[in-house]
Amino acid sequence: MTNNKLKSLRFLLESNGLNGFLIPRADAWPGEFVSKHSERLEWISGFSGSNGCAVVLADEAVVLTDGRYVLQVTLQIDGKDWQSGNIRDVSPAEWLQEHASPGDKIGYDPRLHTKTEIAAWEKLLHEKDIHLVPVTQNPIDSLWTEEEGRPAPPCAGVYLFPEAIAGRRFEEALDLVTEKLKKDALEGFFFTMPDSIAWMLNIRGGDMPHTPVPLSYGLLKQDGSFIWFIDPQKVPDTVRQRLQGRVSILPPADMEDYLKALTGNIGLDAQRSSLYFFHLLETPCEIEDPCLIFKACKTPQEQKAIREAHIRDGRALTEFHRWLKDADYKKLDELTVEKKLEEFRRKDPAYRTPSFDTIAGAGENGAIIHYRATPKTNRKLVENNLLLMDSGGQYFCDEFAGTTDVARVYAIGEPTPEQMHHYTLVLKAHIAVARVKFPSGTVAAQVDTLGRVALWGESLDYNFAGHGVGCFLSVHEYAAYMSPRGFQKLEPGMLVSNEPGLYFPGQYGIRLENLMLVQKTGEKDILGRDMLYFETVTFAPFENSLIDFHKLNAKEMAWLEEYYRTISDRLGI
Amino acid sequence: MTNNKLKSLRFLLESNGLNGFLIPRADAWPGEFVSKHSERLEWISGFSGSNGCAVVLADEAVVLTDGRYVLQVTLQIDGKDWQSGNIRDVSPAEWLQEHASPGDKIGYDPRLHTKTEIAAWEKLLHEKDIHLVPVTQNPIDSLWTEEEGRPAPPCAGVYLFPEAIAGRRFEEALDLVTEKLKKDALEGFFFTMPDSIAWMLNIRGGDMPHTPVPLSYGLLKQDGSFIWFIDPQKVPDTVRQRLQGRVSILPPADMEDYLKALTGNIGLDAQRSSLYFFHLLETPCEIEDPCLIFKACKTPQEQKAIREAHIRDGRALTEFHRWLKDADYKKLDELTVEKKLEEFRRKDPAYRTPSFDTIAGAGENGAIIHYRATPKTNRKLVENNLLLMDSGGQYFCDEFAGTTDVARVYAIGEPTPEQMHHYTLVLKAHIAVARVKFPSGTVAAQVDTLGRVALWGESLDYNFAGHGVGCFLSVHEYAAYMSPRGFQKLEPGMLVSNEPGLYFPGQYGIRLENLMLVQKTGEKDILGRDMLYFETVTFAPFENSLIDFHKLNAKEMAWLEEYYRTISDRLGI
Repeated sequence: MTNNKLKSLRFLLESNGLNGFLIPRADAWPGEFVSKHSERLEWISGFSGSNGCAVVLADEAVVLTDGRYVLQVTLQIDGKDWQSGNIRDVSPAEWLQEHASPGDKIGYDPRLHTKTEIAAWEKLLHEKDIHLVPVTQNPIDSLWTEEEGRPAPPCAGVYLFPEAIAGRRFEEALDLVTEKLKKDALEGFFFTMPDSIAWMLNIRGGDMPHTPVPLSYGLLKQDGSFIWFIDPQKVPDTVRQRLQGRVSILPPADMEDYLKALTGNIGLDAQRSSLYFFHLLETPCEIEDPCLIFKACKTPQEQKAIREAHIRDGRALTEFHRWLKDADYKKLDELTVEKKLEEFRRKDPAYRTPSFDTIAGAGENGAIIHYRATPKTNRKLVENNLLLMDSGGQYFCDEFAGTTDVARVYAIGEPTPEQMHHYTLVLKAHIAVARVKFPSGTVAAQVDTLGRVALWGESLDYNFAGHGVGCFLSVHEYAAYMSPRGFQKLEPGMLVSNEPGLYFPGQYGIRLENLMLVQKTGEKDILGRDMLYFETVTFAPFENSLIDFHKLNAKEMAWLEEYYRTISDRLGI
Repeated sequence: MTNNKLKSLRFLLESNGLNGFLIPRADAWPGEFVSKHSERLEWISGFSGSNGCAVVLADEAVVLTDGRYVLQVTLQIDGKDWQSGNIRDVSPAEWLQEHASPGDKIGYDPRLHTKTEIAAWEKLLHEKDIHLVPVTQNPIDSLWTEEEGRPAPPCAGVYLFPEAIAGRRFEEALDLVTEKLKKDALEGFFFTMPDSIAWMLNIRGGDMPHTPVPLSYGLLKQDGSFIWFIDPQKVPDTVRQRLQGRVSILPPADMEDYLKALTGNIGLDAQRSSLYFFHLLETPCEIEDPCLIFKACKTPQEQKAIREAHIRDGRALTEFHRWLKDADYKKLDELTVEKKLEEFRRKDPAYRTPSFDTIAGAGENGAIIHYRATPKTNRKLVENNLLLMDSGGQYFCDEFAGTTDVARVYAIGEPTPEQMHHYTLVLKAHIAVARVKFPSGTVAAQVDTLGRVALWGESLDYNFAGHGVGCFLSVHEYAAYMSPRGFQKLEPGMLVSNEPGLYFPGQYGIRLENLMLVQKTGEKDILGRDMLYFETVTFAPFENSLIDFHKLNAKEMAWLEEYYRTISDRLGI
């Protein structure tokens, strides 16, 4: 089968004068999730991981992916046709440097690559006289048709997101962003992030797994009007009526000509937009998506809704925790506990979907970052070891909405002193961040360090980062990133994750994650700046049997007691 | 008198078709110190502060300076001729926007301004049709001649800095930097920082107050040869012989033609070079001075020498401390204690000069950042209050060399509980930074936060930063800056200051400053990175009577005890 697909692709490439082709996992939008319709990499190679790029030449082909998938990829590809490699060691361009010949023309679809990416690869290939050539029609799309079993493009209906939850009318959101365009002397900005558009227009949709947004593009002009390029079938009359006067809906087929005809400086986010749009626009100006900072700082109404969603999520987590304590763990495996947690969440009528694929890692599987249990990898819960659960939900109803993301670690049977020691260290790191008061202007990297220092003392650390979270939007959203390189300021209203951890390969993993809203304390510091603090909005107890309470100091104990009191108040338990 | 100078200047400007002229405090080199020969701002206006810029128009003139000098400037200028203002509120360009007329031509000397500065001002003035015009001959230099009492340009002799202390031959330093040029595909780099040149050539000089360097410029070429533009009178035969073969010495008068004739990409540090050089070079490339990072990371031999210099400095500080305890403080004032500390330092034959103007602030004068006692401001030591001393020395002999910078706060009489509380808080902040172990890759802002968090809890903070320090070079040198915006990595061998503080205007100031070398612990962390720590090299006790020992935890006490043991060992006391 694979052989036939590759054969057909190579025939097409040759007839178009190309010596090779790049097939990334990405679709034509930024973001980590891709609809089934756009899984071109999986179709051609069999590889279904969430990150990777294939390179096909006339007589060889490779799938490059990252460390998480180096085992999985070898199981999914056909070794006769495909090689594989770690994309962190060998980029597609570096692979081409070794395997392509001088003078070769390698095609790529400019809708599926950013400008930054192609520019870096071209620089590497230039010296070898290998050329990257943009194609107007992706050859995979010619081969993989609906007759061939390709899923149709997603076409879920769009619906209104209540103004009472958003805290502003969509016109106000457009005005905010328009003011920013004026300051930057731009005629317009072309939006490629589906969640930026959903946020600005107070709408949601269902084209994507996990993130409730429609796939669309849009142009905001300096006069405050918005041209929305979206399949008209997705947009019901209720939405049209609300938007009319300010928003014009055009079919995506009209977009190319529309953009080509535009004059004047049009902003485009080079990190978050396909190269394709740089080719279409006459004078694109590289600038960060102007929604990012507004979207990151939640309105008081969003904050209220987010708290309510987290109360619902906390109930599900607490019920799950109780169930697990009483269960006969010898009968449980990763897939059954994942399913059980989902069942508890589903009891709440406002629960919609997971906000990302649940990580349920038993014992040493818990030490694999971004692990996902499959029937092949599924493990029984391991006695006297840990179970790591990292999960989240999307909640939405007329009264509230929110996106959750929470990690807890459970003891299966009797924990060892070492497990308790490491769990307590991570808890100390978590509390150090959660309880700090800091002046306005502080960047995330500063606060993040307060947690890590508890681990540094024992030469321990972790190499992942906290992130922003949307309000019934993306679970990974721009905000001040809680990481050693998070040089963005923490602004009041930001919703960020606090998720220190420790991963011991072959043994177990620990991560304790809560979401927190940045708030003002109401005080000023000696230099006249607002003092800020974190309001933790995740409401789920930690695993007391894993805490070595003797190692918590008075301030840490006080925080923990206060946190448990808040959980009890909020959940009514 | 002033009136005559201004009159002559205005006459000269008019005859050159100029409507005004800018006179900054800067000379033609980067850095905070200026030789007497270059004090043009003081000559024309009477203002002697270390930062400022005058603007002279046909019928009015202003001296703009920063908050530190707003009082001093009004005392020094003649109010009939001069206005004054805060340069942070009103830049020279903003003042011109209000006071100059459309079409006006305002002269400036491109040797005395950076490219960045002039570009920003031109942008502001463009809309008002006011033009900045570079002059080839500074009119102040035509008026202020040696006959008029102008000091001659400094012409101190250059001498060799021992290779045994530098830890490398000058050829090795040139090789290091040349490699960097090759990587950046530059034909050469033009050096404007006197301390970069001194570091590369293993030489020192005496043209500047506080920093033992000759004023010179130099071009490093890709073939590793160095063209040194320096007054040949300054360079004795010993130095010439050592440098010959690799370094050509040319008189500064030849520099302009030499640079104009250069082709190819020549690097220039836009932040640290006069605009003048951008005008001379055909293809200047903006790049950071490539010496900075090499100079910042001290060799093992430099580290040894730095430790020895700090032992000498520690002895002087300890003797001063003892003397102060026994002295009748009612008879002492800021200038007498400043002089006394200098006396103790002078006892050491290797001591050369202060590394900057000593800050000796009694009581509320201690709360003025960058305070310098003068006969006018001089205060008696204040009973039941604090004395802040921030000072440093330059040490050099055949065996060792180093630059010190240390701040201590002394109790005069009986301290109040509040003074003790604040002193102890600053000490806790100091210790938090001094005792941390951290992985390679950590940036200074992360570590800096560990100190500030002790203050944040009480809505306190300070708005100054730690800095790098040279080895018998500049007391303020590039390195990872210990500040909330210090996003540079802490690299092994860097010498940085740890100087938290608290300033209560009208009451007192506290700052506790030690210098620290970044060192490897020899361990790796769980992610495979080298673990690093700080080796404190300042050896002087704190003021025990100001420490509330009950507020120190066990780890802080252990650090303090270990520090006192080290002082005792090193100083033999």
